[in-house]
Amino acid sequence: MDEQTAQKRLRAVRRQIRSMNLDAMILTGPENVGYLTGFMGHDSWVVIIGRRTLLVTDSRYTEQARSECVGCRIVERKGPITRTVADILGRAKSVRIVGVEKTCSLQIFGEMKKHIKVRFKPTARLVESMRRTKDAGEIRAISAAAAKAWQALDRTLPRLRAGMTERHAAGLLDFEMRKLGAAPSFETIMAFGANCSRNHHQPGARKLRSRDTILIDFGAKVGGYCSDTTRCFAFGGPTRFYEKVYHSVQAAQLMAISKIRPGVRLSEIDSAARNVLAERDLPDYGHGTGHGIGLQVHETPFLSKIAKGTLHAGDVVTVEPGVYIPGKLGVRIEDDILVTQTGHKILSKDRRFNFSKNKMPILI
Amino acid sequence: MDEQTAQKRLRAVRRQIRSMNLDAMILTGPENVGYLTGFMGHDSWVVIIGRRTLLVTDSRYTEQARSECVGCRIVERKGPITRTVADILGRAKSVRIVGVEKTCSLQIFGEMKKHIKVRFKPTARLVESMRRTKDAGEIRAISAAAAKAWQALDRTLPRLRAGMTERHAAGLLDFEMRKLGAAPSFETIMAFGANCSRNHHQPGARKLRSRDTILIDFGAKVGGYCSDTTRCFAFGGPTRFYEKVYHSVQAAQLMAISKIRPGVRLSEIDSAARNVLAERDLPDYGHGTGHGIGLQVHETPFLSKIAKGTLHAGDVVTVEPGVYIPGKLGVRIEDDILVTQTGHKILSKDRRFNFSKNKMPILI
Repeated sequence: MDEQTAQKRLRAVRRQIRSMNLDAMILTGPENVGYLTGFMGHDSWVVIIGRRTLLVTDSRYTEQARSECVGCRIVERKGPITRTVADILGRAKSVRIVGVEKTCSLQIFGEMKKHIKVRFKPTARLVESMRRTKDAGEIRAISAAAAKAWQALDRTLPRLRAGMTERHAAGLLDFEMRKLGAAPSFETIMAFGANCSRNHHQPGARKLRSRDTILIDFGAKVGGYCSDTTRCFAFGGPTRFYEKVYHSVQAAQLMAISKIRPGVRLSEIDSAARNVLAERDLPDYGHGTGHGIGLQVHETPFLSKIAKGTLHAGDVVTVEPGVYIPGKLGVRIEDDILVTQTGHKILSKDRRFNFSKNKMPILI
Repeated sequence: MDEQTAQKRLRAVRRQIRSMNLDAMILTGPENVGYLTGFMGHDSWVVIIGRRTLLVTDSRYTEQARSECVGCRIVERKGPITRTVADILGRAKSVRIVGVEKTCSLQIFGEMKKHIKVRFKPTARLVESMRRTKDAGEIRAISAAAAKAWQALDRTLPRLRAGMTERHAAGLLDFEMRKLGAAPSFETIMAFGANCSRNHHQPGARKLRSRDTILIDFGAKVGGYCSDTTRCFAFGGPTRFYEKVYHSVQAAQLMAISKIRPGVRLSEIDSAARNVLAERDLPDYGHGTGHGIGLQVHETPFLSKIAKGTLHAGDVVTVEPGVYIPGKLGVRIEDDILVTQTGHKILSKDRRFNFSKNKMPILI
């Protein structure tokens, strides 16, 4: 992270802290810590008091913090983190009300209350709401992550063979991402045949068979930013029914994507996809139609039936409708979309796919 | 998980719930959910009311829950999880005081309080304390995980080449674990040269050079159970100083392991390792000497200076002293040790290493 970005983010978070009448703020979420300081390690908190920003870490991370942090002072703690933070806040003048993130656990909050003698005010989405709007650097990182993911997939697909386990195939894809300098952004879902209907399937010992279908839901991480995409394939000739389902899911996805522009209700994107499937007498899916991506693979905004609010320029969301018939098949197609000032842009542009008129992808 | 184990665990947790005068208990931690029900997915809670155990999940996981769960009823929620749990508790008779795990976030606890009209009592380590003592099946799983990890390492080491990045080498090791039917139990640490002093180094673009040193901290997961081990190597001839450090860390580890038996203070194992390094004028390390492993890669008990209590038969702990000289070198050696009735047993037995008299491992 460059100095300018760090300063801009710190100024924005300080404005929020002042507007909530907080004397100080403790940030415990690792992605929020990373967003404000550039530090990509764990178990470290940010304390903001007035114009001062401190990263409280321990000896495991001090070297890393020194090389990554921008715009903050690094404090290496020796004892429990709450003690060190208590000392810092105790030394500061007139700190009475301190914000703490609602994502922290009851356990940690209890320890804070025990050691730190101030009034705590739990805050929700203080940094998360800033993180929602992606800047040019973040958009580049997500696009780069998606590009690496496709490159890795391109190298993996020709190596799939009948007899290979889901676990082996998932491992191959992950390895290709790593060789390209990226890391998987979440546990790769590699499902064969009927396993494709299990939305969050964990790759197992199921072997690839000829005339199987394949669902791959995976992402890469570049500079801390995640991509999240899904593709389905037929390993040999698909059934007519599978082809019908595939094209319907694709039509649902394209319909939802076509609606994306600033000001559109989040729930409208969700229903746009579901309506296409309903018209074709296909079953509805139990998950949301999409979610924001960034430093986390699931972050605000969420595209669902019950979502409130609208899309804003700078949002990056997945669009991922699916059709699942337990014991039989599962199809999901997922891409990463930026909301621009006037419409949208597909960040996970995939040269193998023509988004306007796509054929069912068949391997071998 | 077999029926008998499930019943035994559920009986034990019900006893705890009764002894705390709770009418019901909500379990939100995924490992605790897995320990009690066999379910290995996410975003699902267990509700225990009297003799009834319910797994509240959603359509993404229903199929998986049906195939994995033992001894509980599966409830597929349609709306927010807190609503479904509120309905369940509302329908049950005379439920007034409900336990909730302290590991849950302020956010989730706030939502529970909003939707579920009962008195909540936060509980700490209710299931975690049961999980501490491993049964024969769990010990077998951890041993199997360690064995897979060594097998993967055996296949990886001969393929390391000068010019290979840390990321590539880490990816290779992870892939070998997956091919063996295991998954990495945490993000593999693969560090070359001076990066070895960064305790929680994330593998990067640093390339392996001849006469480099290598630190690999990694683990496999088998049936949900984790191994966690570290080995160091010299890629070509090590310096005299590196060899001295290596043998000292090994002596420290062996000293700590030799003390392991039921009744010994946790802090005594910690100081046993540190004293060996101090006697040899080597710097102390900033992390603990070890930690419990099981369904989580870090769980109770912790071996540290400030740890209270003693070792018990059935504990499985890592022992992992290290010496770190920033900008220069890092050495850590880590194994997984079971506390037996009379002493200890090394579960991560490694055929390449003779634990009593080990030579510095040199590659090529």
